[in-house]
This record gives sequence, C-alpha cells and structure tokens, in this order.
Amino acid sequence: MKTATVAELAALVGGETAGAGEVAVTGLADLAGAGAQEISFLVDPRRAAELAGSRAAAFIVPAKLPTVAENRPLIRVADPYLAVAKIHNFFLTQPFAAAGAHPSAVIGADCVIPAEVSIGPLAVLGNGVRLGERVSIGAGTVIGNGVEIGADTLIYPNVTIYDQSVIGCRVTIHSGSVIGSDGFGYAFDPVAGRHLKRPHVGRVRIDDEVEIGANCCIDRGTFGETVIRAGAKLDNLVQLGHNVEIGENALLVAQAGIAGSTRIGRSAVLGGQVGVSGHLKIGDRVMIAAKSGVHNNQEDGAVVAGIPAIPHRQWLRVSAAIARLPEMVKELRSVKKRSGENE
Amino acid sequence: MKTATVAELAALVGGETAGAGEVAVTGLADLAGAGAQEISFLVDPRRAAELAGSRAAAFIVPAKLPTVAENRPLIRVADPYLAVAKIHNFFLTQPFAAAGAHPSAVIGADCVIPAEVSIGPLAVLGNGVRLGERVSIGAGTVIGNGVEIGADTLIYPNVTIYDQSVIGCRVTIHSGSVIGSDGFGYAFDPVAGRHLKRPHVGRVRIDDEVEIGANCCIDRGTFGETVIRAGAKLDNLVQLGHNVEIGENALLVAQAGIAGSTRIGRSAVLGGQVGVSGHLKIGDRVMIAAKSGVHNNQEDGAVVAGIPAIPHRQWLRVSAAIARLPEMVKELRSVKKRSGENE
Amino acid sequence: MKTATVAELAALVGGETAGAGEVAVTGLADLAGAGAQEISFLVDPRRAAELAGSRAAAFIVPAKLPTVAENRPLIRVADPYLAVAKIHNFFLTQPFAAAGAHPSAVIGADCVIPAEVSIGPLAVLGNGVRLGERVSIGAGTVIGNGVEIGADTLIYPNVTIYDQSVIGCRVTIHSGSVIGSDGFGYAFDPVAGRHLKRPHVGRVRIDDEVEIGANCCIDRGTFGETVIRAGAKLDNLVQLGHNVEIGENALLVAQAGIAGSTRIGRSAVLGGQVGVSGHLKIGDRVMIAAKSGVHNNQEDGAVVAGIPAIPHRQWLRVSAAIARLPEMVKELRSVKKRSGENE
Repeated sequence: MKTATVAELAALVGGETAGAGEVAVTGLADLAGAGAQEISFLVDPRRAAELAGSRAAAFIVPAKLPTVAENRPLIRVADPYLAVAKIHNFFLTQPFAAAGAHPSAVIGADCVIPAEVSIGPLAVLGNGVRLGERVSIGAGTVIGNGVEIGADTLIYPNVTIYDQSVIGCRVTIHSGSVIGSDGFGYAFDPVAGRHLKRPHVGRVRIDDEVEIGANCCIDRGTFGETVIRAGAKLDNLVQLGHNVEIGENALLVAQAGIAGSTRIGRSAVLGGQVGVSGHLKIGDRVMIAAKSGVHNNQEDGAVVAGIPAIPHRQWLRVSAAIARLPEMVKELRSVKKRSGENE
Repeated sequence: MKTATVAELAALVGGETAGAGEVAVTGLADLAGAGAQEISFLVDPRRAAELAGSRAAAFIVPAKLPTVAENRPLIRVADPYLAVAKIHNFFLTQPFAAAGAHPSAVIGADCVIPAEVSIGPLAVLGNGVRLGERVSIGAGTVIGNGVEIGADTLIYPNVTIYDQSVIGCRVTIHSGSVIGSDGFGYAFDPVAGRHLKRPHVGRVRIDDEVEIGANCCIDRGTFGETVIRAGAKLDNLVQLGHNVEIGENALLVAQAGIAGSTRIGRSAVLGGQVGVSGHLKIGDRVMIAAKSGVHNNQEDGAVVAGIPAIPHRQWLRVSAAIARLPEMVKELRSVKKRSGENE
Repeated sequence: MKTATVAELAALVGGETAGAGEVAVTGLADLAGAGAQEISFLVDPRRAAELAGSRAAAFIVPAKLPTVAENRPLIRVADPYLAVAKIHNFFLTQPFAAAGAHPSAVIGADCVIPAEVSIGPLAVLGNGVRLGERVSIGAGTVIGNGVEIGADTLIYPNVTIYDQSVIGCRVTIHSGSVIGSDGFGYAFDPVAGRHLKRPHVGRVRIDDEVEIGANCCIDRGTFGETVIRAGAKLDNLVQLGHNVEIGENALLVAQAGIAGSTRIGRSAVLGGQVGVSGHLKIGDRVMIAAKSGVHNNQEDGAVVAGIPAIPHRQWLRVSAAIARLPEMVKELRSVKKRSGENE
C-alpha cells in the first residue's frame, strides 16, 4: 500500500495545499466511500456541504472553492477531475506482475513471447504472434496469425483479434471486442443474381495508448489499413468500418458507428449513437452531438447536431421551433384565412 | 413429459373452461405447430378463424371471444399472453440437472462451488468466485476474481464477468455480454496533451430475476456501483455506462444506451435504440419511444418521444406537422407575398 | 501463387482488353499497394490521373474511361467493383485445407463430423452437432446441441450458436456473433408484480451464402423460426428479434435493429443504425436510409428515410425545410403582425 502526504499529492498535481499538508493518506475514494486514511474530492463547488459528512482525511477541491472549515486539509486545483485521476492512478499503479502463459493456453508456432507477460487460461495465439514486454492477454482471448502487440498492452478476456492486426503499446482492449473482421463490401452480380463478396486483404492498426471498450467491432481495410491513432478512446459497442481512420485523442462514445473510409480528425468527440456516413472527412476537434447522423464533411472545430447534422447552434433553434410546429400550423392557417379575406 | 387436463390448466391461470375440461394435453405450441396432444392459443380475437386449421387439442383464448364451435375445449382468460407464459413454463420447467464442472474448465483458488452446479467446457473461474446452488455457467464463459453469483442463475456461453461483480439469484445472462468493464472516463491533461484514464474501482451489482440479453455491455462504477434492480430485463446489445441504476422491473429494448450515472425508475420501458444522457433521473413507469434521445429528467409516468424527447402526444402532432413542412414553406411564401401586397 | 494474363482476366469478367493482353499478373491490389506483377483498378474516372503513379502491371477501368497512355494494358468493364471482386477472388481462392479437430477442442456425443473440416483450438461442440464437408469452426466458438451446419461454412472464433440452430452452406459468421438467444418476450403478471418470461422454443435458420458480421445478435423464434434467407448479408452489431424474416439478398448495414416478427423483403437495403418496429412487412427492394425509424409496412420498392420514416423524396424536402424553421418562425411572426394590422 502506498502512502503520501497531502503536500506531496498537491505537488504531484500542481495544486495548492490549504491546511495540514503533512497529513498522510493511503488511497483515494469518493465522498461516501472514503475511509479515514483516504483522500476524497469535490468537483461541483455547489455541493461543498457534502464534505462535512465524509470520513476522508483530506479533499481535492476546485480552486475557487471558499475556505471550508472542516479541520481537514485541502488540495486546491484548477481541474479536480484531472487531479483525482492523477492521484488515483498514483495510488493504484502497481508494477506488472507477470503470470507467464497459463498451461491451458494454446500457442502457435514461431511466436515471440517475452518472459514478462501474462497469458490467461484458454487463450489462443496463432502462428507468428509477436508480443511486447509486459503484455497481458485475458482468458479465452483469440489472437490470429501474425498479430503484433506492443509493450504494456492489456487485452481483457474473450477478445478476438484477426490475422495480421498490429496493436501498439499501452493499449487496452475490453472483452468481446472484435478487431480485424471483414468490411461490409459486396459487388452485385446481376448475372448470378447475388452479392459477390469483396475480399478484405487490409489490416487494422491500433496505435499507442488507444483504449477500446467492450463489444466493439473494428473492420480491417479492404486494401490498406483501418487506423486508430494514438490516444484515441472508444467506448463500448462502437463500430468502425473498413479503412476508417480515427485521429489522435479522438473520443467516440458508446454505440457510435463510422462507415467505411471515413476519416475522423484528432481530438474529435463523437457522442453516443452517432452515425457518420462513408468516405467523409471529419476535421480536427469536431464535436458531434449524441444521436446525430453526419452525411457531409465537417471542417476543423465544427460543432454539429441532428439528422442530418447541422451546426449545433442552428440545431438548438430548430429544436425549439420544432416543438412549436403544431402551433405554427394553426397560426399559418389563421393568417392564411385573414390574408385571403383581405384580397 | 408432463400431462395436465384443460381444467387443471385453467385453474393454474385463473381462467374459465368452456367445453371438455377433462381433455389432457402434454405441451403447448402455436397454432401452426401444435400437435393433437397439445394446447395452443389465440391472442387476437379477429384471428379466431385460424383456430379451425390447428391440430391442437384445446385453446387458450381471450375472455371476450365468442363461443367457437370447434368441438375443442377452451380456456378463457383476461390476458392470453400471461396464461400462455404460465402454462408453457409449467410444461417446460424441469428440475435442475447438475452436470458438475467439466474437466476442461479452469477454476481458480478459494472458490465456493456447491455440488449442484453445472460449469461448461472451457469455462474459466478466477480466484475467490462464489457460486450459489444450481448455478449454470456456459462453455467459454470467463468469470473474474471475487465474483459472487446467486442460486439458480444461468449464464450462457462466452459471457465475460469482470472482477468483483455481484450477481443475484435466478438471473439469466446471454452469450457475449460483458459485465463490469471500465466506464468511459478520462481527464484531459493539457500539459501531456493526452487523455488520462480515470480508474474504475466500483463494481456491477445485478439483483434477482434480472435477464440480460446477448452482447450487452454493463460498465462497473467509477466508484460505487452500477446497479440493475430485481426483475429488470435488458434486450440484446444494450449499453449501461458507469454508475447507472436501472429500477425494478424496467424493460430496456435492444440497442438502448444509458450514459453514466443516470437512474432509470422502476417499471420504466425504453424502446429500441433509445439513448439517455448522463446524470439524469428518469422516473418510475416512464415510457420512452424507440429511437428517442432523452436529455432531461423525466417525471414519474412521463411518456416521451423524439430527439430531443418531448411528451409523446406533442411528438405525434409534431411528426404530423413535420411531414407538412414543405407545404408550409410554400404557404408561408404565398401568404407573405399577399401580406406584402396589402401593405 | 496463381498467374493469369490480362486477356484471360478480361474474359473472366466479360471486359474488353486495351493494350498488351498477353501481360501476366499474379495478384490484385489497390493503386497504392500494387506491385509490378499485379493488376490494379480505378473506379472513379475523375481519378484517372492516379494511374500514372501506380506500379501495377495493368488496370481494370470503367468502360467509359478515355484511353490513357500508360503503356500498360487495361481491362474496360461496365462495373469495376464487380470485376475487381471477381478477379480478386480468382487470385485468392484456395482449396480448403482441412486441419481436422484441434486436440483441445471439446466435442460432444453423437456428432457427425466429416474428415475434411477444421475445428479450432478450444472450440466446443455440443451433442448431436452435424457438420457438412469443409466446415471451419474458429477457436473458442461454442456450438450448442443439435446444431446443423452446411458444407463450406466458415465460422470465426468466439461465436456462440445456441441449441438447434440450422445453418446452411457457404455461410460466414464473424466473431462475437450470437445465434439463437432468446427473444425479448415477457408477460407481466400483476398478481406477482413481475415480468414472467415467455419460453422461446423456436430456432434460427440461416440459409446458404448468408454472411453475418461481428457481434450480431439473432434471436431464436418464440415458436417457429427466425429466418435469414439465402444471400442476405448482415454487417456488424445487427440485431434481429424473434421470428424476424430477412429476405434473399437483403443487406443490413451495421447497428441496424429489427424488432420481433417483422419481415424484410428480398434485396431490401437497410442503412446503418436503422430501426424497424415489430410485426411489420417491409417489401422487396425497399431502401431505408441510415438512422431511420420505420413504424409502418412498406410496399415493394419503397425508398424511405426519417423518424418516423417517410418517402425519401419527401424527407429531402422536409430536411431542407427543417433547417429553415427558425427563419420561418420569424417570418410567420412578421406576417401575423402585418396581417393583424390589416384587419
């Protein structure tokens, strides 16, 4: 168990200590769950009254929070979320404990597997798989032939990674996700009266520090690559079609879906259940509201909403007007009548 | 094979027998599939003519159905769906047949496993797993460390349950579902130029008689719990974010998604592909139409539809008006012209 | 490695050779990836300038493409997509290489398993499973009791197929998909105050040449069958409720969901994230735009969009009008005012 003083933690997050900086804590928890040896936190200053009821030894609080007389030290920070994440990670991060390969795992020929890895029970590695140091593969996960996985990457149980996928370092992939399945591509053959499958010979490339949620689907390229660039984060049940490119640090909330060959810019944020059509270019820092459907290219920094998506400010006014539509119908009828009478 | 007379079945469901109550049947099937030893059923009285073509020995029918002269006994009930479900369950329910743990299953240390369980081939249980009586774990399912599973719970193959999840009695979880994955929570670190992952140290708690469909994702709490209360039912591909609470007997239809920390009231019904934003309170018995997007708290009993969701009655009028919009544009132009001419 | 001359490939696809038809190639790739022994292709005539930069030995091009002076032979075809698919399949198709059953696979009693199959590591077959010739079952896939799988069908790793499902020939099922889970059916019991589960005793039937993407969910029939007819293709994360019928050659793009008992006609095309209510009849060749919500029957050949879905042409005009709504509100106010003044 790690221990740190409030002053040390304040230094870690660039915060300002108020009160007894020498108080030592051994962990972080929320207000309700914190014990007397733990630090807790407040994000919303309007809820400052809740501090009194917590057993925590100290608190991380917003910089603007007025002095609170709890006789407990505070760390004042500009962004409590960030400070909490840093301090929580400080307490929880442990050195990698290599479990080796479980004897029930099935490992193919010509694999490169460092000594310092964990391969769970009943995991399957194909031929020619190359793992980096400190990789962890969950139970029941199936990794195809020729897959490369970089150092410190964590793959949870029951993931499936198709042949030839390339995965970077410090990547996390949650259970049930499928990496490298075929894209949805067919050519209709009018003579045979059937859809002829287009072979998908590309691959998936996932760069460093990407996180992929549970039950996502990332199709391989038809040719070339489907790419998720460094630091991008996908929530659960996200769908990426063939040859999609996701920019650095982009965030895709749950159940979003991106059709084939579309490029999402860096630091873009896509809300839950968003859909984006194929072959589009969505710029850097674009924000797309939850449930929107995007059918057009979007410039850097655009903020859009709706189906089809329009600028978010316009969408707010449209939404307000839509709720008034039935009334407008009546008004228009009334105006028509009077207007007609005046003819 | 069980056998029961029509009169016995009528008593089981509180129905009224018409005709030969002493006729015995050995099972239940739909009109097309029923054999001469089975009872069948009619839900829609307008389809009463279809009874004649069925081979069934007897029928469950709506209470208001006029006498039908099929020379076959009827059970008249207020709710045929409910009567069919009760009678069908009567015929199908069998005593639990414990298969024990398949020799290929991998079971960790310090687990509590009663004699009367079934653990399928190649299932994996971590350390400290505690199973109740008559639990059934499907092939390939992976259960993390410290998970508790109550009596009579049925988990289908290829499910993944993360560490520390708590699952009640008589719960059913279908294949591919992932219970306890991390929530989608990051704090952006402007100095490092990257999203810093927030640790998720909470858990998932699933109460008694919950059913979870296939390929669902239930994230664990960031702190505290994500909770699905007793009797709630989730269809396939449903997404619950961290710290979501689902009320007793709520129904969530396929592909619905609930963002973090939102509470859904008891007996609420969410249609397919519904999305609900985070940190909301959706009241008891709220009904949300399929494909709606809910961005605001909803009072008990509210019935809403649309993106953003509005009261359903208003939405019906809005939808009708929307289809008339192009016409309204023309009318408005015409009125403007005439109005202008009158100035 | 296969080799063919440009003239031979032109004959294969019914195309017209321009230039040196005797040039031999050994594979197909896109313009950027093609080597000097490969044929490449152009779909969009406006991008003809890109041919010059490719190392390919020959090109498949649209019939209307003006002569390009690349000193490399062309195959002119009416539909480059189709020709590319045919030629690519020609190069890639290999005779089935039976790997037999991996020793770690768990195979139940009374199965019918031809010599020429591949059953991957840690796959599980229940009792009474019947496989056709040249079936391939991926690692970790779980196949229930009594399942039938036709010849030449390919099932990727970590798929789950429930008991009694029937799967045809030349079917492909991608990882994570769940075939045959229970439908979402409950009857509310007001006395017990709970939802009573309706048993689902039907099955899933998947006909020949169907392809099912990753992480799809296909529920079994309550009674009778959920059916996917020959040649239909499902993208990833598609949901089919109990007793749904999908017509021949229908295409369902990712994240589409179809509620119980709905019939989708042959050659229908459903865009991504489409939702269709239960008990509907969607005709042949119906096209439903991405993200639409369909609440009504649709006649053969209908093209619809929106929530609720309306004819696509009307939807285009409605969408244009919606964006103008805030302006209309102002205009209407102004007209009202003037109209009032004229009274």
